[in-house]
Formats: sequence, structure tokens, C-alpha cells
Amino acid sequence: MTTLDVAAQGALVKAAARDISLASTGTKNAALQNAADVLLGRSDEILKANATDVADAEADGTTSAVIDRLRLTAARIESMADGLRQVAALPDPVGEVLDGWVRPNGLRIERVRVPLGVVGIIYENRPNVTSDAAALCLKAGNAAFLRGSSAAITSNRAIAAALREGVSKTGLPADAVTLVDDTSREAAAAFMKLRGVIDCLIPRGGPSLIASIIEDATVPYVIDGDGNCHVYVDASADLDMAEAIVVNAKMQRPSVCNAAESLVVHAAVADAFLPRAAAALDGVELVGDARARAIVPSIGEASDDDFAREFLDFKMSVAIVDDLDAAIAHVNRYSSGHTEAIITRDLASSERFTHEVDAAAVMVNASTRFTDGEQFGFGAEIGISTQKLHARGPMGLRELTTTKYVVHGDGQIRS
Amino acid sequence: MTTLDVAAQGALVKAAARDISLASTGTKNAALQNAADVLLGRSDEILKANATDVADAEADGTTSAVIDRLRLTAARIESMADGLRQVAALPDPVGEVLDGWVRPNGLRIERVRVPLGVVGIIYENRPNVTSDAAALCLKAGNAAFLRGSSAAITSNRAIAAALREGVSKTGLPADAVTLVDDTSREAAAAFMKLRGVIDCLIPRGGPSLIASIIEDATVPYVIDGDGNCHVYVDASADLDMAEAIVVNAKMQRPSVCNAAESLVVHAAVADAFLPRAAAALDGVELVGDARARAIVPSIGEASDDDFAREFLDFKMSVAIVDDLDAAIAHVNRYSSGHTEAIITRDLASSERFTHEVDAAAVMVNASTRFTDGEQFGFGAEIGISTQKLHARGPMGLRELTTTKYVVHGDGQIRS
Repeated sequence: MTTLDVAAQGALVKAAARDISLASTGTKNAALQNAADVLLGRSDEILKANATDVADAEADGTTSAVIDRLRLTAARIESMADGLRQVAALPDPVGEVLDGWVRPNGLRIERVRVPLGVVGIIYENRPNVTSDAAALCLKAGNAAFLRGSSAAITSNRAIAAALREGVSKTGLPADAVTLVDDTSREAAAAFMKLRGVIDCLIPRGGPSLIASIIEDATVPYVIDGDGNCHVYVDASADLDMAEAIVVNAKMQRPSVCNAAESLVVHAAVADAFLPRAAAALDGVELVGDARARAIVPSIGEASDDDFAREFLDFKMSVAIVDDLDAAIAHVNRYSSGHTEAIITRDLASSERFTHEVDAAAVMVNASTRFTDGEQFGFGAEIGISTQKLHARGPMGLRELTTTKYVVHGDGQIRS
Repeated sequence: MTTLDVAAQGALVKAAARDISLASTGTKNAALQNAADVLLGRSDEILKANATDVADAEADGTTSAVIDRLRLTAARIESMADGLRQVAALPDPVGEVLDGWVRPNGLRIERVRVPLGVVGIIYENRPNVTSDAAALCLKAGNAAFLRGSSAAITSNRAIAAALREGVSKTGLPADAVTLVDDTSREAAAAFMKLRGVIDCLIPRGGPSLIASIIEDATVPYVIDGDGNCHVYVDASADLDMAEAIVVNAKMQRPSVCNAAESLVVHAAVADAFLPRAAAALDGVELVGDARARAIVPSIGEASDDDFAREFLDFKMSVAIVDDLDAAIAHVNRYSSGHTEAIITRDLASSERFTHEVDAAAVMVNASTRFTDGEQFGFGAEIGISTQKLHARGPMGLRELTTTKYVVHGDGQIRS
């Protein structure tokens, strides 16, 4: 029953995907503008729906941090509508000719950017994802098949209904934005096995969601994984710059994946840098290796697990290394492949670090916090890929597309 | 025990991947040239090893077609060596800067092409794949982790040993080419779960292998799937051209994935075209819908399954459609997403077909047989992707890479 429901919804989304994939940029933009209008027009209704979810969560004893993510306000709905309009203003990636050439036999080959089809998103409590994710999917010519959490289902239904009405008003099928109705675990399990329906699944959630996707999904997916990001302070670093970057990378917003989790310091500057860094990282619990603790006794003892961990909190591991080779080896050993930074004035150190560190983004003299679709100039992002296939790093509209070879001949056959 | 063996080999391949990823183009080319030399130098030894596999296969009552794929000759070994040299001559994809821009805050962002790391290949009887796949992996800066069939294990061991010696001679780690030693099913199952070791798995085999990858693999993979390729003859087609292309697409090499499996004919030209096409497709068993059978009575009855099937043989399904819409709907319904062709003189038909058909390659007035890395000008191919993520269509060296963002700043922090 549950499985049938998700599958039946899948068939409708798939049919809608064809229409949205062929829609002009103007039509897609109009759909996004109309969706924004309907969303604002139904603000009271959406807030009322959200109040139900919030009341249920409070009755369940949900933590205030989670409730804060769940709660909508008039300002948050306005910001969702703004998001829809901003995505409408972005360039349409569909139709871009990536390359093209002519073969000796006269065949003319072009590689053209086309929509993926149906993009599935599994996400947790924030109801704004319903609108943000749908906007990016639609603009890239895809149908959005959205599976939010049960805690946000009333809010998500109200938001999805508004988006669907906006899409319909434009003459596109409402099913191009479809919310999975059944929030059971069984429905989630069925969702990630809708091969032939979901062309790309993007899970946005914690390690247990990611693990279940890797283990159970049969549809293609892109992993938005964790960020065990390092800042390496080289022997030649400008220590003022290093301090400012370490503090920013760790403290500006510790709960996000591009926040730094580990500080690696070259032994030549450890005595000069570590005490001032520890003082500047006021409020951050530091755990480190024996050499770090010898320099700053207040640093706790780090286990191997600490070096591998994404704290997402005011906590940071510290390691002292003898040279650049050891720094690169340490980073590559513990990196989750998200973002790694070096602070240096030495050209060779910069070149080697960027060349040899294996991560989606490698920063020189900049905070790890810049790995972000908005900061990269993509206008918006659907996530940050920590995998190597299809997309790596911040994913914008381009990463929600695939390519097609279009080949023109005049009767060529193979001999 | 089995699992440990594959995992232990995996650790060695992963360590070697780092060295090969940092090797210069010159060093990688020298490794390929040295591997070609050693392969030729050991020709007798490899043929002797192959004779063992062939004798075992004959004793097992293996079909002659399979034994032909398994059998090596001096000429086939020369062709493997030539393949290594040809790949050495191809441009190195690594290091290409795909795009780059400067942000308002001065951050300079570049997207650079880098190796994937460890590429796993699962393949069936042809021992030449050992050499061909290793060549492409190495040239793109990857370590090759190869899992051939048990029937070819003696041949594969001899070939892999020769390649490893060539790689070693160049100062690169031999483990950059590693053959899975254990050809059991358990080892294959463990292989496709080596997450953190295999960065990309490319299965080259039949539907049961693909199904097991989709169901069981936890490593990222690219599917080289089947090709239920259509040729659609439009109302405005040049019927001489259409006949030549249909015959070529179906008959020139029916056992391959880019051979045509289905002929779709516009009703307006069905009376004129179908009888001559049926005559030209001499030796091909045709099965079709009622309208096709009314025109050519020798055509058998096609089931729905026939329209969905990749025959890989001298068999073809035939459907008559009333218009371009019906043609596109038929193709999209039964397509496996590989290659679809239209034969037409009408610009609007050509535009609509290429725009609306959802496949890796869409051909206008050319045989489906051209979807191929060599024919596209890639120099060589590792497979043909029928999936939408990462790579779609023929995969050459470029598709064996990923990208990395390299970001240069001068102290930028986020506010």
C-alpha cells in the first residue's frame, strides 16, 4: 500500500518531468514567479499549518533548536518567495552547448546540457527546503520529488500546494512539484528504490540518512556528506592572517559542513602561533596531539577518533607537523573530501598543497567557510557534493543537469 | 578470508593511486610504452597462459563463441600493445582548467580536472580488457583495480604481471595495476563494497552483472547498460538513405549495444518503405505490430516485450506510427537511453526529435553504430554510459576524471 503510493506518485512526477524538461526559460521563470505570488498570498494558511507542526513537536518534547528549524514566520515565507524570484533571475543552464566538433566522415557532434528528469530530495525539518529545492529543480528543467520529514508534513503540504498552484497557473503540470505524501520509513525505503523514476536523488541529512542511502538506494544519487575541514598553517604563514582565518573558519558558524574542525600547524611556527590561536579561539574546546599540548597545556588529549570527527560545534582538534609532507599526509588521512585550507606565503607550499590534497575544494589563504554555492557565485545551491562522480563541491543549477550528444549526419554508415 | 584478500589488495591500490595521480604526463606515457614493450616481450608466456584457460574452457564444454572471446593470438597481443601506445599518444586530461572566475571579494576560483583515484573494472571473458582498461585508467592518473572472470584468470595474471613490470620500470608503483586475485563470487561481492577504496566502478558485462551492481554495490559506479536503439524513418525521409542506415544499424554488427533493435516507420511512408526495408534486411527476423504485418505479411507478431528487448542478434521489432509525436512517444517508452536515430529531410522533425528524445546520443541521418568512443574521436573508450550522472554516452579519458575547486585568496574571511 505504502510502496504503491510512492510508486503511483512517481509515475505522475515522471510524466510531468517531460513537460517541464521541454518548457522554455520564460515559462519556467513565470512558474517560479507565480509560485512566489501564491506562496505570499497563502502566508496565513501556511503559518497556520506550521503552527500545527510546531505544536505537535512541542508536545513530543522536541528540542528548541529543532523547533527553531521547523518554525516558519512571515519573514521566512517572504524569504522563500524571494528565493523563488532569485532563482528565476539566474541564467538557465539548459541548452548550453558544452563542446562540439566535426569528424572526418562529416558527422557533426554536439554535447548539449539537458535536464536530468526527476530529481528526488530527502530532507529533514526545515520546511523552506520544500520551496528552495523545488525552485532549483524547476529552473534546471526537472520535476522535484520531495520527501520531507514527518515532523514538517503539514507545513510541507501547505507549501507544496502553493508551489503546485503557481506551476499550474503557468500551464505546466502541478506534478512537477510533488511531495511524498507518506512520511513512513517504508515509504522512504521505497522512494530510494524508484529506479526508472528518480534520475538523481540528493539526500540532505545526517550520517544515518547517508548510510541508508549508500546501503539501500538503487537510484543514482549524489552524496552531500560531512565536512571534516582542516586549516593548515604553514611555516611561512602570515600569522595574523592565519589567526583571523582559523577563528572565522571555526567560530563564525560552527554547525555547518564548511566550518573547520581541525587545525594543523607547522612545527616551525607552532610556538609562536598556537598560544595566540588558542587564546583567539576563546570558547572553543581544543584537543590535540602531545606536541600541541606541550605548547598549550590547556589543550585536551585528542584520540584518533577526534581527528576524524566533524564536531559541528565549538570544538577543534590540533596537530603539529614537521613539514609540508606530513601536513598533506595528515589532511589526506582524515579529510572527508570537503574543503581543506593552507595559510602560506610560500609559492611551492601553495602549489603542492592544492595539487596533492584530495578534496572538493582546496583554499589558499582563505576561510573554509567559502565553499558554498552562494559564495562561489552560483546564486543558490542544492547541496555540497563530497563525492567525485557527477558533481564535486557546491551544486548549483548546472549540477542539476546532464548532457546529451546530438549528432548530425547526411547518411553516414559504419564500414 | 576472501573479503580480507580483496580489502588488502584494495589498500595497496589506494596507496598506489596517490603516486599515479601526481605523475607527470611524460612519466605516465613512459609507463604505457614500457608496459607495451614488456607485453610484447612476454608474448609467448602470455599465449601459454592463455592456452591453459582455453583448454579448461574447452574441457568445461564452453561454447565456441565464448572461447573465441577468450582466445589470444600473437596478433591480439600486438593489438593490445598498440592500444597501450595509442593511449600514450592521447592528450592527458589531467590539469585542464575547466573554468575560473574572480568573486567580488577577490577570491579567485578555478575548477581543475583531476584523476578519480582508484577505478574498479569488473569484466567478463576478453583478456584484452585487462590491458585496454589499465591503459585508460593510468593515462587519466588513476590506479586500475581489475576484476576479470575466473575463466580468463591465468591469461589475466600473465597480462597484469607484464603491465605491472612496465609500470615499475618507470618508477611508478606496480600496484597501480592490480588484478583481483580471487575470482570467487564472494570476492566480487566484497569488491563492489570497497567504499573508501574504489572511487568509480565500471561494470562491463551482461544484465545480471548490472543488476547485482545496482542492488549490492556501495561504491560509486557508472552503468554501461544495454542499448535498445531505434531508427525512426520520418515521413520526409530519403528512403534510400533510410534503407542504408537501417541495414547498417541492424546488420553490420548485431551483437553490440549500439546496433539498432527497433524500426519505427511513419505511416505516410510505410507502404513504400517497409517492403523494401524487409527485403534489404535479408536474414533478419522481423516482428511487428498489426499495421506492419498488414504491409509485410512475413513479419511476425511482436509482443510488448519484443519492443523492450535488446536482441543483440539478427532480429528487429517494427512499429508503424501516425506522426512524429507517436514516434517520439514510442521511442521514449521503450528506449534504454543509449542511441536513437531519426531519418528525415524535415528541419522541424529533426529539431523536435533531438530535443524531445531522452537518450545519451540522438542521431539525425546517421547510423546508431556511431555511438562509440573511437567513432566520436576519443581515441579509445572504457565503455558507454547509459546513466545520466557523471558521464553519458561514450566514456574516454575525460570521463575517468573528476574536478577539484582550487581557490586563491589573500586572507578572505566570511562575515
